[in-house]
Amino acid sequence: MLVFNKNYQSIWPDESDPSVIRVIDQQKLPFFFETRELRSVEDVYGAIKDMTIRGAPLIGAAGAFGIYLATLEITSLTNVDQHLANAARYLISCRPTAVNLSWAVNYVLDRLKKDTFAPSLSSAALKAAMEICEMEKENCRQIGKHGLKLIEKISKRKKGKPVNILTHCNAGWLACVDYGTATSPVYFAHDKGIPVHVWVDETRPLNQGARLTAWELGQYGVPYTLIPDNTGGHLMQHGMVDIVIVGSDRTTRTGDVANKIGTYLKALAAYDNKIPFYSALPSTSIDFNIRNGLSEIPVEERDPGEVKTVTGFIDKKILSVRICPENATAVNYAFDVTPAKYITGLITEKGICRATEKDIKEMFSDKFK
Amino acid sequence: MLVFNKNYQSIWPDESDPSVIRVIDQQKLPFFFETRELRSVEDVYGAIKDMTIRGAPLIGAAGAFGIYLATLEITSLTNVDQHLANAARYLISCRPTAVNLSWAVNYVLDRLKKDTFAPSLSSAALKAAMEICEMEKENCRQIGKHGLKLIEKISKRKKGKPVNILTHCNAGWLACVDYGTATSPVYFAHDKGIPVHVWVDETRPLNQGARLTAWELGQYGVPYTLIPDNTGGHLMQHGMVDIVIVGSDRTTRTGDVANKIGTYLKALAAYDNKIPFYSALPSTSIDFNIRNGLSEIPVEERDPGEVKTVTGFIDKKILSVRICPENATAVNYAFDVTPAKYITGLITEKGICRATEKDIKEMFSDKFK
Repeated sequence: MLVFNKNYQSIWPDESDPSVIRVIDQQKLPFFFETRELRSVEDVYGAIKDMTIRGAPLIGAAGAFGIYLATLEITSLTNVDQHLANAARYLISCRPTAVNLSWAVNYVLDRLKKDTFAPSLSSAALKAAMEICEMEKENCRQIGKHGLKLIEKISKRKKGKPVNILTHCNAGWLACVDYGTATSPVYFAHDKGIPVHVWVDETRPLNQGARLTAWELGQYGVPYTLIPDNTGGHLMQHGMVDIVIVGSDRTTRTGDVANKIGTYLKALAAYDNKIPFYSALPSTSIDFNIRNGLSEIPVEERDPGEVKTVTGFIDKKILSVRICPENATAVNYAFDVTPAKYITGLITEKGICRATEKDIKEMFSDKFK
Repeated sequence: MLVFNKNYQSIWPDESDPSVIRVIDQQKLPFFFETRELRSVEDVYGAIKDMTIRGAPLIGAAGAFGIYLATLEITSLTNVDQHLANAARYLISCRPTAVNLSWAVNYVLDRLKKDTFAPSLSSAALKAAMEICEMEKENCRQIGKHGLKLIEKISKRKKGKPVNILTHCNAGWLACVDYGTATSPVYFAHDKGIPVHVWVDETRPLNQGARLTAWELGQYGVPYTLIPDNTGGHLMQHGMVDIVIVGSDRTTRTGDVANKIGTYLKALAAYDNKIPFYSALPSTSIDFNIRNGLSEIPVEERDPGEVKTVTGFIDKKILSVRICPENATAVNYAFDVTPAKYITGLITEKGICRATEKDIKEMFSDKFK
């Protein structure tokens, strides 16, 4: 997508050095636009862990490139399988909630076993990782096309008045490889000349909404308004939200959606005010093995320091300020689970379906066991 | 309540200078504990406007002292009524949502008319303002005693395991004159040796939870954990909250509760998880004239700059950092309204009642028209 009118993805292999994977440093946005080099499995792990890169589809792609970098680190031919298995386990352990990470890592390992015609293990791994990037881009494009129909319908009803879309966290192109999940329908609508306006939840503690979604939308020229996470309910009560679209870090086969902490509260408010609430996700974010989101999806607990501080910009510097008493105790759950009953539908690459096991099974019969 | 083991109120007349009202500067907490002098109507207006002092009962008391300071500013005996009426109108205009402000200002004006035996207008006004302080303190004490019963009941059921109370914003003694509304039952329970633990919503944009409630509870030795505003729903889903108690800036005669933005979202989550949700408020926060909170309570819109920045502490200084793109548009609604149907009950100075017109009328028959 556009950054200063130039096209970017969130992750790509360096054009001049094949041993380098390049990413946009999302910790520094929107204050500085910088890219960062990943040269090792350790670099990939670190970049995911410290949120240089984040978002379920993107950390999947990064994990895939991580296996590629692992193939470059092979020093002996006797323990290749063990080396890659260790790298895979290490990468997958980095963040527990999103299912894309393990899916993508295992996809690359699987392709390495099958792709016996590749000139080298590394070239096979790079090819597989690039396949994942292309697949995720195409998934997001399709999500955009399907989601567009929902926005078009509302726009017609509103006779051209802007369609107000509320989103939480960043499920934009930065979280994916390109286009985004929740934002993809918005970009498609904007490109088609449909007036849209996005309510952007700031999304404490790490403010991915205020920092990333606001920046993305601004770069693309989509009108938006930043709001505290507390505000969405009030807007919905007063008819100022037409549709909620969020992403997903993991969705069960029954339609329960794990997403950034706070998503559940917005789903409740949408339900209370009869506003459609959609989760946009590629099927790579669906965990077809589990049925109960609340009991089966592990919710990552992160450093309480992220809650006790806020990072922002002042005097040309990025600074973290403490917002509470020094000795305060804090807790930092990164995700919550929205039960399927509060979700109007899932916007996937194959189309829109209800958040029920029956409908998900109909749409993804090939992946159901 | 205790600050560094010394007893304080949030507002009081200076002991040595009768023309000075002294308040704790809540903008500087928890980083610095400082008091500020209010010497004029203008000072009171400014202190309420810039949130040096906030909280429905406290701004009521401050408004009352504002009329006292107005009596000190009388320069001619010919236009006393007009002068005081102007001061009253000015003070009431400062913040539109809380009803206590207009109630307290009018209370003092009314007493001035009736208290014909006072040695001077000023002494009558000071006496009336002090009456309001004493009344609000006693209201909060009674709220504490009534609310204590709810906590005791849960504690018995939990066989002595800590009672987990979630609160939003600061409805503590800083928001009142003393004790607090939502926190008063907590302090009473703590004093009685009942193990309690408070989940403190940080309460963006101005972080009254992270800054003030955390500080208050810490000073009093009550265990608490700071959480982002996004977190409460997840905690409730996982049985980690036993009761929610919040304050109120204005409550209708039918039980709709206006309170800090985001309260409504917590009420929805409590309702969804069958967790009791109470609003603790003195009857001075009830607007007996209105029935529909959503359409009749004016919701203050504050400076969007408060949303685009976060104020915190670094290098021994209080600093505001920008958390979004520089040119971001933001909006800042200060309150929302929780419909009565989501409220288990109101904890008032007269006892606990359901949030219905019938029950409120029964409890406050003298104030019902």
